[in-house]
Amino acid sequence: MTPQSRPSASDLTIQESASLTSGADFWTTKAVPRVGIPSIMLTDGPHGLRKQVGATDHLGLGASVPATCFPPAVALGSSFDEDLVERVGAALGLEAAIEDVAVVLGPGINIKRSPLCGRNFEYYSEDPLVSGVLGAAAVRGIQSRGVGASLKHFAANNQETDRLRVSADVDPRPLREIYLRGFHRVVTEARPWTVMCSYNRINGVYASEDPWLLTRVLRDEWGFEGLVVSDWGAVEDRVAGVVAGLDLEMPASGGRTDAQLVAAVEDGTLDEAAVRLAASRVIDLVERADRRPAAPGPLDVDAHHALAREAAGRSIVLLKNDGAVLPLPRDASLAVIGAFAAEPRYQGAGSSLINPTRLDTALEEILALAEGDVVYAAGFTLDGGDEDDTPDAAALVAEAVEAAAAADTAVVFLGLPAATESEGFDRDHIDLPADQSALLAAVVEANPRTVVVLSHGGVVALPFRDDVPAIVEGWLLGQAGGGATADVLFGVVNPSAKLTETIPLRLEDTAAFGNFPGEFGHVRYGEGILVGYRWFDARSLPVAYPFGHGLSYTSFAYGPPAASVDGEALRVTVTVTNTGGRAGREVVQLYTAVPASTVPRAPRELRAFAGVTLEAGESREVELTVPLGDLAHWDLRRDRWIVEGGEYRVDVAASSRDVRGSVTVTVVGDEVVLPLTMASSVADLLSHPVVGPIVQEAMAGLLDGAGAGAAMPDDALQKMMGSFPIGRLAGFPGLPVTFEQIEQLVAMAGAADEADG
Amino acid sequence: MTPQSRPSASDLTIQESASLTSGADFWTTKAVPRVGIPSIMLTDGPHGLRKQVGATDHLGLGASVPATCFPPAVALGSSFDEDLVERVGAALGLEAAIEDVAVVLGPGINIKRSPLCGRNFEYYSEDPLVSGVLGAAAVRGIQSRGVGASLKHFAANNQETDRLRVSADVDPRPLREIYLRGFHRVVTEARPWTVMCSYNRINGVYASEDPWLLTRVLRDEWGFEGLVVSDWGAVEDRVAGVVAGLDLEMPASGGRTDAQLVAAVEDGTLDEAAVRLAASRVIDLVERADRRPAAPGPLDVDAHHALAREAAGRSIVLLKNDGAVLPLPRDASLAVIGAFAAEPRYQGAGSSLINPTRLDTALEEILALAEGDVVYAAGFTLDGGDEDDTPDAAALVAEAVEAAAAADTAVVFLGLPAATESEGFDRDHIDLPADQSALLAAVVEANPRTVVVLSHGGVVALPFRDDVPAIVEGWLLGQAGGGATADVLFGVVNPSAKLTETIPLRLEDTAAFGNFPGEFGHVRYGEGILVGYRWFDARSLPVAYPFGHGLSYTSFAYGPPAASVDGEALRVTVTVTNTGGRAGREVVQLYTAVPASTVPRAPRELRAFAGVTLEAGESREVELTVPLGDLAHWDLRRDRWIVEGGEYRVDVAASSRDVRGSVTVTVVGDEVVLPLTMASSVADLLSHPVVGPIVQEAMAGLLDGAGAGAAMPDDALQKMMGSFPIGRLAGFPGLPVTFEQIEQLVAMAGAADEADG
Repeated sequence: MTPQSRPSASDLTIQESASLTSGADFWTTKAVPRVGIPSIMLTDGPHGLRKQVGATDHLGLGASVPATCFPPAVALGSSFDEDLVERVGAALGLEAAIEDVAVVLGPGINIKRSPLCGRNFEYYSEDPLVSGVLGAAAVRGIQSRGVGASLKHFAANNQETDRLRVSADVDPRPLREIYLRGFHRVVTEARPWTVMCSYNRINGVYASEDPWLLTRVLRDEWGFEGLVVSDWGAVEDRVAGVVAGLDLEMPASGGRTDAQLVAAVEDGTLDEAAVRLAASRVIDLVERADRRPAAPGPLDVDAHHALAREAAGRSIVLLKNDGAVLPLPRDASLAVIGAFAAEPRYQGAGSSLINPTRLDTALEEILALAEGDVVYAAGFTLDGGDEDDTPDAAALVAEAVEAAAAADTAVVFLGLPAATESEGFDRDHIDLPADQSALLAAVVEANPRTVVVLSHGGVVALPFRDDVPAIVEGWLLGQAGGGATADVLFGVVNPSAKLTETIPLRLEDTAAFGNFPGEFGHVRYGEGILVGYRWFDARSLPVAYPFGHGLSYTSFAYGPPAASVDGEALRVTVTVTNTGGRAGREVVQLYTAVPASTVPRAPRELRAFAGVTLEAGESREVELTVPLGDLAHWDLRRDRWIVEGGEYRVDVAASSRDVRGSVTVTVVGDEVVLPLTMASSVADLLSHPVVGPIVQEAMAGLLDGAGAGAAMPDDALQKMMGSFPIGRLAGFPGLPVTFEQIEQLVAMAGAADEADG
Repeated sequence: MTPQSRPSASDLTIQESASLTSGADFWTTKAVPRVGIPSIMLTDGPHGLRKQVGATDHLGLGASVPATCFPPAVALGSSFDEDLVERVGAALGLEAAIEDVAVVLGPGINIKRSPLCGRNFEYYSEDPLVSGVLGAAAVRGIQSRGVGASLKHFAANNQETDRLRVSADVDPRPLREIYLRGFHRVVTEARPWTVMCSYNRINGVYASEDPWLLTRVLRDEWGFEGLVVSDWGAVEDRVAGVVAGLDLEMPASGGRTDAQLVAAVEDGTLDEAAVRLAASRVIDLVERADRRPAAPGPLDVDAHHALAREAAGRSIVLLKNDGAVLPLPRDASLAVIGAFAAEPRYQGAGSSLINPTRLDTALEEILALAEGDVVYAAGFTLDGGDEDDTPDAAALVAEAVEAAAAADTAVVFLGLPAATESEGFDRDHIDLPADQSALLAAVVEANPRTVVVLSHGGVVALPFRDDVPAIVEGWLLGQAGGGATADVLFGVVNPSAKLTETIPLRLEDTAAFGNFPGEFGHVRYGEGILVGYRWFDARSLPVAYPFGHGLSYTSFAYGPPAASVDGEALRVTVTVTNTGGRAGREVVQLYTAVPASTVPRAPRELRAFAGVTLEAGESREVELTVPLGDLAHWDLRRDRWIVEGGEYRVDVAASSRDVRGSVTVTVVGDEVVLPLTMASSVADLLSHPVVGPIVQEAMAGLLDGAGAGAAMPDDALQKMMGSFPIGRLAGFPGLPVTFEQIEQLVAMAGAADEADG
């Protein structure tokens, strides 16, 4: 397609327009050769490219071309590092460009509502700010190569169970403040070429056919100008989808749904303009893809592997390091235990599964760096799990115990077997397999100097955390995770990642417990806005490791924070000093609280974060900026965002439960006057600046008279009657005012408000 | 009104009919003298009659005639004693009859969703079975005297905050299984003359104008044939109310809403028949009231006071009694401490407040029974609370400490001041006032042999429970509570009551925390069916004292339970033996669990209870019967109750966390086949008895082919694809079957189901 021949939807027949709105096959759009519209390819790949080999596969899950497997979002998010995420995105974009892929289907930024969600490894966080900031960085990176991103899964797709039908029943505040907020940020800040609608329903309506979601919110409110593509198989009613704003159905429908669109236009039930609009967005996307500069390749496999290793090193969270067991001395003798050391778990299963260009193992990389004796013992098998002890299992444990006893330090690699977490289904518990727990207990008994390294996509409980001096949270680290793990263990890399999700003590403590994964096709988001650390903090629940937690091999001191507010933003500065003996990076977090808030809120909400890299002894001032709009809550009565005025406490923190300094600022909020009506309460009436005083004298007499009757203490009576809607109380017999007089007062208040406004 | 002149709504003009559908004043209906319809009176009074003196009051809260103040529901419910509740109801009915009151506005059976609800003292339990069984008993008792009961507040009125406007946003399962189930039981078992609709909205619709609630559920499903009356001031839209099935608006509207009804009939927006139907129900109610046998009085004040004392004694829960500190020896020297001993809190404020015929104090009644020295010290003032220490407060504590130190035992009366709980507003914490906690600590230090007696309407936290040997939970005990407390303290009455609500360790542990009392006019019942003990059990949370807990001065042993199931009911027998040294009464509880349930459930649900009174050493077989329908859950897909088939574990228990024996039974459930459609999942298709085998071969090949592509382990792939709706998967390109072929399979399945059914 050349610029001078740029076709538009109006050049097409209605059949051709309709044909553009669904795929040609699993991965490509349809061409319209008559007017020079080519086909483009969209492929999976939030953390690497999954471009399928050939076209024979019928579920879209067949073998794919080799590509760099970067750390999945669960790990990369822990870096809290926008720049890194953007660089990884750019590398991914380049790989896509080399493979002539127009759109990469990612990033996924859904909120980790429950640790049981089988696809949590593809998502960044339980927090919408982290999800949004890092999602935007990923989009910027991918799109910097002239390749489109597809922001997914829009929206409220927070579980795999019955994901194609289940209705996420979620109230307006959590929907806006938790589940849509990250999407809003990515759409407005990074302008993804496409947004992918999710499989599920939201409050009963399929995302793929929800005009509120796909048009009113996404386009009208947020200004999205790209294309909406369905998740693969998300279309239930194609006509409703086009009306709602779903432009492109994927994969192909064999022409069946194209014909439905044409028929609906012909019988007058569908406006032809809606089909042409969808087609025009497909054409726009094809044109954008067509403008991509050439990227002839070949892929620099080494360079991308090195980036994957750097990213993995930045993603490893040091949860615990008592007695500075880590980093390991190079000359220490080591027992490397656990099958994951030799057979890494480095990514999750499903549509995001990459065929890696190369694959490090932690064992080989430890051997490469170690200068002392290293003995490996598998300890367990990856297909084992919770089964009873077997002679083989006992022999594996015995071998591991022997190795541990003989070594200075045991490094035990534990994790979740690949079969236990995947796209397509949820977990039903958060425990490590029993055989691994038993192995660890035996190893610790033989050698208390034991370091645990974890590999898994979803959170696991860590009941052994008091029994070992050090825990390295490796999540799923991509193809170079083995090397990165060795780097961290030996201190080649100083860990700096922090938790983007709370590690709970028990599944029963988590917010969605009892409301996950739902029943009868519905899942109630009953915890409302109290997701993740918001829940644990609101209920004052102990956790294993809090949101935002992560250690370093050095230490950081925070000076007192200073804060100012202008009409645009809250600005906070704090001086951070590296007080330890080596260079390191600290992720500084800014939370706000509104102690006298008139609406329920979490005790503390993340509003900004920034990483700062410091040499040993170095100090630097870190500035964190929060646009005032980010402080808003969703106001149901007005159906819009409202920034509440008043005092905000600003907590500058090393984790959600490690506040290093607080400062209070006053924010001028949005005007929130509601007009007085007959449905307003007596208390509203009494506090009205104009009519309140007029009423107070009569009311005072009213309540005194009743209070004398002794059915209630006066205070109680005031509270009770204050909540009566004035229109309702006005009907009561024997009142000294009539219904009509109160209507007049309301009218008087309205006139006063108008004069005032 | 005499039988031969019985008028009907058809004898009335539309104006006369409309006039009957709202009150004449605060407490009476309108008469229509032309056709001989008299006025009748309705008055407050779940635990005693509140008939106002005179007619001058304009809020309905003025002084009332003396009446017996029986224990409010919070206390009486703890008796778990249907017969007692019915006797109290009959006494209340008699007092109403003597005062020529036609309808008593009670009982209230709303569920205690949060301990913060200011009106919890008027309700029985956090459990719908207890609420329903005891509510039915109260109705039977009241109506046995020819006086009508008014079952309230229908429905989902579980808080006071913004109660006239707030929408209780509650999903179908909890609405049916928790919030409506007790109403269902009372309506069907006890046939109350009237039901009072609540102030609030339910899922956005005012109860007073909800046709689903007032007609479809109440009348069509449950067969209610009585009258629906509004809570006082609950009418927002009178026309909508009449359409929905609200027969009588209270209090008077000054004719304003009657005129609205007539106008709506005249302009054709309201069917005249609806007004006549409401009027006919008012006439029916007046006729029923007219048939009441004469009850000339006067009230036997002594007899009713004695009943109030008996009921209060049955209502006191002995929470803790280490070392058999209780009962007190008659000759012990006692320090009676705490202002509540001399100035009792015995009922809650608001519309239920009774002007008692007499009032016992615990101090006087202890003095009457004691044979040793008794010294009283107030310890604190009732208007004090959380203020800082004052010289006066210190002197009160010093006096109490001195008394405690000199006595064998200190009996400390603690509780909530009257101003802290009432109809009309909710509490914001569950703590006792700080001055009382400080007093108790000082007393315990002076004399560890300290008994705490509690007076309050809503649950309070008991952080001191490990510091004292005995705790007597007195709730609010009515006018004879002082005597009953003395009876229990000295062992004249052996306590037998048990908790109808959990006493939590912390407010933050409770189910509704974070979702109470809502915001912006909505409160989300996010905890769903997990209310009360169901929540604490599901989340394995520790509690201070569990639901169903209560001690005795004797002990009981349970034999092994035996269970059988027939087509009607689950029947369980268990032999209970009094193994202690004195006569006592044990409340035996039956809970069920469904270990392999296909729907989420609470770990344990109360299905039956029975009290058994046993002499020392006596054994008796207790039989508990659970109609099978009581085992049902609400099935959202079918919009009806379904009894799940399979194994049920039956726990026979002394409390919800003191199971004494379990037995497993098999229940034949309701048929639950859902027809196969294009929205059915692949797993549903594969498991269909007829078409499943046909598909399996093709599917097996399909999945094998994709599994070879390595994007997912085969198991994971099976799970993922199994959840795809067949109509959606059928659209995928390259599948070996066409959409049309799958439609044929679904049709084939439908035909097979029909042939089978």
